[in-house]
Amino acid sequence: MKIIQKEITLNKKTRGFHLITNEILSLIPEIKKIKKGIAQLFIQHTSASLTINENADPTVRSDMEAYFNIVVPEDADYFEHTLEGTDDMTSHIKSSILGSSTMIPVTNGSFNLGTWQGIYLCEHRNNGGRRRITITILGEE
Amino acid sequence: MKIIQKEITLNKKTRGFHLITNEILSLIPEIKKIKKGIAQLFIQHTSASLTINENADPTVRSDMEAYFNIVVPEDADYFEHTLEGTDDMTSHIKSSILGSSTMIPVTNGSFNLGTWQGIYLCEHRNNGGRRRITITILGEE
Amino acid sequence: MKIIQKEITLNKKTRGFHLITNEILSLIPEIKKIKKGIAQLFIQHTSASLTINENADPTVRSDMEAYFNIVVPEDADYFEHTLEGTDDMTSHIKSSILGSSTMIPVTNGSFNLGTWQGIYLCEHRNNGGRRRITITILGEE
Repeated sequence: MKIIQKEITLNKKTRGFHLITNEILSLIPEIKKIKKGIAQLFIQHTSASLTINENADPTVRSDMEAYFNIVVPEDADYFEHTLEGTDDMTSHIKSSILGSSTMIPVTNGSFNLGTWQGIYLCEHRNNGGRRRITITILGEE
Repeated sequence: MKIIQKEITLNKKTRGFHLITNEILSLIPEIKKIKKGIAQLFIQHTSASLTINENADPTVRSDMEAYFNIVVPEDADYFEHTLEGTDDMTSHIKSSILGSSTMIPVTNGSFNLGTWQGIYLCEHRNNGGRRRITITILGEE
Repeated sequence: MKIIQKEITLNKKTRGFHLITNEILSLIPEIKKIKKGIAQLFIQHTSASLTINENADPTVRSDMEAYFNIVVPEDADYFEHTLEGTDDMTSHIKSSILGSSTMIPVTNGSFNLGTWQGIYLCEHRNNGGRRRITITILGEE
């Protein structure tokens, strides 16, 4: 049993949903040695999140952004935590709905994702900057 | 430390929320050997999801279906990703809200769930077909 | 590789979102021995949940409570599962949106959280009582 743990920093993303499967894999060549196990991607922030969704059509990502902007509206007048702008509290809410962590099975040296699955970084801030992710892989070589 | 990893395929389900704890357990007799550890159930699709909820009253499952149909409405006119029907983009959204993976502690050879907890398969498509789940158990015998 | 698994019981909380990082850490001194690994916190209930969010400003927690009360309304007339009151079905829904489990990397004897991250217990019932959490840590000493 082997544990690989490292912190990576993603390139800055615009607000919205971004497919990051390949960016992540390029930063963890160590995964190639793992025959079976499990990987956690954990984002070290409370205004961006990680999820798994469709990896082919960009309109899935833009529809996700449109949907979450409607269901978590920035013009809600009851939010108190808005010091950093109208995208402040809404980003925290989206982060808890979508989750700060994603768990993925690892098989034969890579993520064991379905044909149509990819990893999304969900950037909820207008100007979120670079995001740090702690990756932990538990598995057998 | 032992890692069990296998892919199972569930029987086809109708659209809605389904209690699958026993169906899952019947497909992984290997779990009986694990004294303590953790199990991941990971669905290999982006239009169905997995969650933990109440295991007794069927109206919890029908109320869940009713709620998510309202909060993720199929008649929203701004969705672009609707090639496969009005249940296409909404299924992707529900999948990210509820999650493609569920993690469950394993104790004394079975899932360590609360008295009222069960595993749900959430089928978001009108005609989703059979769903594949990758199960990974990390634990001690 | 070491597996620590134990069940803890939190002090009773009022309805709403509560920062519990320190309460959790005080109940698992065993974590100090783990150099790297992963921890799961799993709540044994279907009307309360666990999430990671901002650890400093209390208005984040009150805004979260306000938001979820609006998006999962107790006066929805279509819910059937309301035997235990108007906070019954809504608590189950919030529990699946926010999740019954949270996964956190463990590094150098503690949770590896971002500067602004903390663990929340989300109590969805008006009178939820004490909540049991099963903690499983997989890691290396």
